[in-house]
Amino acid sequence: MKIYEFEGFPNPARVRMAVSERGLQDSVEYISVNVPAGEHRQPAFLKKNVSGTVPVLELDDGTTICECTAITEYLDHLNGAPSLTGASPRERGAIHMMQRRVEAGLLDAIGAYFHHATVGLGPDIETYQNPDWGQHQLAKAVATMAYLDGVLETTEYVAGDRFSMADITAIAGLGFAAAVGVSVDSAHTSLHAWHERVQARPTIAAA
Amino acid sequence: MKIYEFEGFPNPARVRMAVSERGLQDSVEYISVNVPAGEHRQPAFLKKNVSGTVPVLELDDGTTICECTAITEYLDHLNGAPSLTGASPRERGAIHMMQRRVEAGLLDAIGAYFHHATVGLGPDIETYQNPDWGQHQLAKAVATMAYLDGVLETTEYVAGDRFSMADITAIAGLGFAAAVGVSVDSAHTSLHAWHERVQARPTIAAA
Repeated sequence: MKIYEFEGFPNPARVRMAVSERGLQDSVEYISVNVPAGEHRQPAFLKKNVSGTVPVLELDDGTTICECTAITEYLDHLNGAPSLTGASPRERGAIHMMQRRVEAGLLDAIGAYFHHATVGLGPDIETYQNPDWGQHQLAKAVATMAYLDGVLETTEYVAGDRFSMADITAIAGLGFAAAVGVSVDSAHTSLHAWHERVQARPTIAAA
Repeated sequence: MKIYEFEGFPNPARVRMAVSERGLQDSVEYISVNVPAGEHRQPAFLKKNVSGTVPVLELDDGTTICECTAITEYLDHLNGAPSLTGASPRERGAIHMMQRRVEAGLLDAIGAYFHHATVGLGPDIETYQNPDWGQHQLAKAVATMAYLDGVLETTEYVAGDRFSMADITAIAGLGFAAAVGVSVDSAHTSLHAWHERVQARPTIAAA
């Protein structure tokens, strides 16, 4: 399998963590797409992903799978024993619920702040900016951090008592937030404790 | 199981279609939440869903599952033979990829247009509006219709050769679009043909 991505960016980081958690490092070849230079908007890349986003998973027969949740679903089911996306209907429901809340409320919200209310990737890439929307989404991200802190007061992981793709999305979301200068309130002690705990996982530290 | 919803609204429609497709009608009790009157923002409902959105699935032990993809994942796995979310890693990847594209690009985009660039649900509910963002999302929805038309030139359903939750999301998205006065370009003949075909499914017509 090939994964087209840009190392260090938040969505590619999610798939790297999923690959590491599932022990698939030796099955994957990473190919860098120069996003800051706009390579993801060029025809050659748009053929792989019409949405012009990284990461993209390309299977050996040329089939492409885009969007992090979809790529994680694929990787997680390869050996028939999913762990990151849940093993029972209840787990699947809980994980996908939290995945959506963390993705829309934190990671994508920080993304909207970055792309709309800061210089983002620069004027050649950011062809439409709406600063008020970006600020509104920043407030949503901050509110989601407070929500997650409350969730993590009573559960060990974001979607229950097992590490899941919702944790991965939250790790990537907080990493993106830190990269754009948005820190977690020091009063959110449960969120901070969870963050230290999950970052110390060998599979996450190595991703 | 109980499903808290508001009949006729786009996201509740998605779950009604999933229930019908999986033959679970007799296992579900629908409970109406008066969204136009703001009942979804009241403390009693926020206890069920902190995000203040419908639908919400409540299991017999009181566990709640929110967000349509999560509810669909739960319902689809109940009998151990998922169909709407895919039976193989490849199908799961393709379906979740298209689910995300249709949700973000069509249904949620039309939602942003409705809530930001029209009167939406009125000033008591629409406490933050960003008309420029709404118009931008309308353009995204129109582009997604063109994209889907291209996809459906070569495949029978949105995510391949089987009906899936991505089709359900597209049906709900087009229904929402029509309700707010956004029609599908008559040149998109493949999208129109698919729409007639899926609406004629007995399980969808009865949902």
